[in-house]
Formats: sequence, structure tokens, C-alpha cells
Amino acid sequence: MSAQHAVKTVQTKNTIAQTSDDLINSVDSLMLEIIDQTSMQSNATDNVCLVATKYHLASGGHKIRARLCLEAAIALGVNHRDMLIMAAVCELLHNASLIHDDIQDKDVTRRKAETVWVKFGVNIALCAGDFLLSSAYGALANFSDIKLIPKLITTICQLTSVVIQGQCADINYQNQQLCSVSTYKKIVISKSGALLSLPIELALIASYHSESLADARSAAESFAIAYQIADDLCDIDKDAKRNSLNIIRVLEASGIRENPIKTAKFLALHHLHDASNLIEKLPKSSGVLLAQLIQQLEFKLTN
Amino acid sequence: MSAQHAVKTVQTKNTIAQTSDDLINSVDSLMLEIIDQTSMQSNATDNVCLVATKYHLASGGHKIRARLCLEAAIALGVNHRDMLIMAAVCELLHNASLIHDDIQDKDVTRRKAETVWVKFGVNIALCAGDFLLSSAYGALANFSDIKLIPKLITTICQLTSVVIQGQCADINYQNQQLCSVSTYKKIVISKSGALLSLPIELALIASYHSESLADARSAAESFAIAYQIADDLCDIDKDAKRNSLNIIRVLEASGIRENPIKTAKFLALHHLHDASNLIEKLPKSSGVLLAQLIQQLEFKLTN
Repeated sequence: MSAQHAVKTVQTKNTIAQTSDDLINSVDSLMLEIIDQTSMQSNATDNVCLVATKYHLASGGHKIRARLCLEAAIALGVNHRDMLIMAAVCELLHNASLIHDDIQDKDVTRRKAETVWVKFGVNIALCAGDFLLSSAYGALANFSDIKLIPKLITTICQLTSVVIQGQCADINYQNQQLCSVSTYKKIVISKSGALLSLPIELALIASYHSESLADARSAAESFAIAYQIADDLCDIDKDAKRNSLNIIRVLEASGIRENPIKTAKFLALHHLHDASNLIEKLPKSSGVLLAQLIQQLEFKLTN
Repeated sequence: MSAQHAVKTVQTKNTIAQTSDDLINSVDSLMLEIIDQTSMQSNATDNVCLVATKYHLASGGHKIRARLCLEAAIALGVNHRDMLIMAAVCELLHNASLIHDDIQDKDVTRRKAETVWVKFGVNIALCAGDFLLSSAYGALANFSDIKLIPKLITTICQLTSVVIQGQCADINYQNQQLCSVSTYKKIVISKSGALLSLPIELALIASYHSESLADARSAAESFAIAYQIADDLCDIDKDAKRNSLNIIRVLEASGIRENPIKTAKFLALHHLHDASNLIEKLPKSSGVLLAQLIQQLEFKLTN
């Protein structure tokens, strides 16, 4: 790449990032608006559920799913209001899953703060997760193109179901015999791939490009496998202590005892390559942000 | 009432019950269809979430919410498919709340069977409740009158939020000072009233009678208070042991020490009377089943 090209790329990226940051603030505001409006009819004298939910949302996060949705929706020409709604839906679902996952995994910190169940107790955290899950669907009521709502609901419901069942499979495998690489990939695809695919899928539906949903799904799934492998490589010791699923233990159990780290990286890069090829098939550069994330991960894995 | 009139009433009731039982089987089938279809995209090798969900649904229950919806929908002339969908939505939400409530209340039996968390563990039960909650919204995608879907979503989301926040308020009060009668009523309205109102509200929306939503809500709330008081009167000792909210303890704490049971019954009957008056305002006898439930409860409280 020439120096001039490099500068231009960085400028473009910064511009995109700037646009995204403004939009991300709008998504944050919309999420709060949704949960406030949803709560308005409550008779509860002490709305601890809303307090716990807002505590969790205030912890931030990278908003990767909102960004994936916004970048795709911009590329595909979706209107401003609808892209914010879809981005909010993705983030509300993601945060619902985080609150419940933290209960299940007994994680005590999230985004450098106490997890909701530690701060408010398991029972309130359970309610807060339910509230976010329900609010995500509630947000769809304001989507402008009403005839698309059934397709959006079905896609959200199917992918949410995939995430939930992936989490169950993960729980089920935690204290059992180590699984095969194939089962590992299935669990990761369910747990992480589905909610990385959802943002792009919603943008494709909203712009009448449903013919590309399968490509988006496969791209996100391949990326999710690579991402999880990279994550596992950082957590080998931690996962071993907790008896959690980790690619290194899976590879070793599959007979790959000589340099399993090298094999894991090879596997991750292979899936990133697959993901890249699939993204090129998506209409109007709607996978632009996923392509950037792939590049970053590729760099991390090869350096 | 004359003997002839009495026989006619019983015949009519039996006919209604017969119709309902056939329809209830259809609702049961639809619920299974919904959760099977929703699960189809899952890659999970071992679908323990679906197994746990079906285990819970197989335990039955009275299907009061489905029946309230069906009777109202029949009275209001809603088409067959849509009334089944709405009844399924109400039951899926109700059962999601039961699975999560049982975790929170540490209840070990439900409908004479082990609760989901006892049978499958807390983590899987948490997922099963999430799955049912999400599937309830997923069912709406097949509602025939697409332009009504946003209003249905909003109503479901608001009432689900009321239930969740009522559950939180209940949890919050369990180990605190006893609350006032007014707070007791607010908690009961949230925890039980919302999901008793939802079935009738959905039928009203589906038949373009949204002007009656507030009356349906108030009627269901009043009925819920009376129902909970009657329930509390059966559970005085059990609730005292568990430090659970019970009207007798609330009345005693409010200074009513002389025959609080009589006062509780008076309060319940007062709310049943309110509920009856409100039901008469609903269009086309859409509150017919709620009126029957009120009569039954009135009989129970006065005999």
C-alpha cells in the first residue's frame, strides 16, 4: 500500500468511526427511551429492575453489534430511524444475554464493574435480563416499514433461539468429556455467531436484500469461530481452571498434542479467509465493518 | 333462578367448555409448533433447552390465559388462526414467567412435577424461560392482520414489563418490613393482573376495540387482587414460614388485628364487585369467562 493510500484509508476509517460514534450515541439514547417507555405502565413502587438495567447499560461496551448494523444499514440505504431501531434491538438482546450469562458463569466483573447479579442479586439480575430481552422486541413496534416487521421478528426469534441453545450446549459440555472440534465450532457458532450475524441480517431485510442472508450468516459464523479461538488463546490457563471450553483442550483431546497453538491459529486464519470471501458477496459493501474486524483479528493472530 | 334457566345456563357453560377444550388442544399444538420451528436453525448437538421447555409445557396447567383470550376472541369475531396465535402468546409468556419465578422462589414442584430448575439445573431453566419469552414474540410473525402487529407488540411488551417489575418488587419486599395494603395491591396487580388482562386486551386489539383496553385492564387487576387474597387465605402458615407477602400479615401490620380474615374477604369481594361492573362495559360479552371466574371466586369467598 502506498503512503498516500494508507493516509486516505485512515482518514476514511476516521470518518466512518466519527459517523458511527454520533450514531452510537443516538442508539444509546434510543435504548434508554425504549426501556423508559416500556416501564411507564408499571405500578411498581420501587423500580429496582429499571435501576439494575440502567446500571448494566451504563457500563458501556464496544457496541460492535450496533456498529455492524449501522455500517451495513448506511451502505444499504436504510432510513435513519429504522437503522437506529435495529441497532438498538441488537444491543438490547446482546446485553440481555450478557446479564444472564454472567449469572450462569458466576462472572463477578463485566466491563470493569460488578456484574448485575453481584450488585443486585441473582433474582433481580434474572428479571433485568428478561426485561431487556422483551424490550428488544418492543422496539420493533416503531419500525417504519410495517410489512417487514414479521420477517424481522422471525429472524430475531430464530437467532435468539440459536444463542440460547448455544449457551445451553456450552453449559452442558462444561462438566463433561471434552468435545470434538466440530462440536466446539457448533457451540461457538451458536453462542457468538448468531448475534454477530443478526445486525447485518436485519439491515439486509430492511433494504430488501434477503437473498444475501445466508452469506451474511456464514460470514459471521466463520468470523465468530476465529474470534473465539483468538480469545481462547488468551484464556488457556483461566479456562483450564474453570473447566471451560477452550480450543487448545479440544485440540489436545483430539490428538493434536504437538504445538496445538499453531494449529489453533491456522484454524482461525482459515475461517477468517472464508469469512472474507463471503463478505465480498454481500451487496453494496454492507459487510464493510466485519471486513475491518477480520483484518484486525488477522493481524493479531499473525503478529 | 328457575330450574329451567339453571339447566340452560349449565348447558351453555358445557358447550363453551367443550369448544374451549378443542381449541385448547389447538393452542397446545401451536405452542409446540412455534418452539420447534424457532429451534430449527439451532446448531446445538444436544438440544437440552428444547427438552426442558417441552418438559415444562407437558405439565399442563389450567390454560386460564388461553381460555380468556379464546372466549373474548370468539365473542369479538376474531378469525380462528389469529385467536390461536394470541392465546399461544399469552401461554408462552405465562410459562416463561413460571419457569423463572420457580428459580427465584426456589419452588421445587409445579403442577405435581419437579420444577424445571430442579430437573435440569438453574442454568438450563434460565435458558428455557428466555426461550419461551422470545418464542412468544416470534409467534406474532404469523398474525394475519399485519398492520395490527405493532400495537400487539407494544401491549405485550408493556404488560410483560409490568409482570417483571412486579416480580422484582415482590422479591424486594420479601425480606423487608411489611408493606401497606396499597403497596400489596400494586405488587399483586403487577405480578398477576397484567397477564390476566393481556389475553382480553389482545382480543380487543385484534377486533379493533382498543377503546375498551383500559376497562379490561382495570377489571383484570381487580380480579387479580381478589384472586390473590383468596390464595393468601389458603397459604397463611406457608407464607409466614417463607416470609412471603400475604394479605393477613399486611393487614395485621396495618393495625387490623381483630379478625383480619374477615377484612381480607371483604376486600376481595369489594374488588370482585368492581371487576364485575367493569366487565359489563366490555363490548360483545368479551369478558364472559372472566365474569364466570369472578362468580366462582365469589362463591368460594362467601361459603
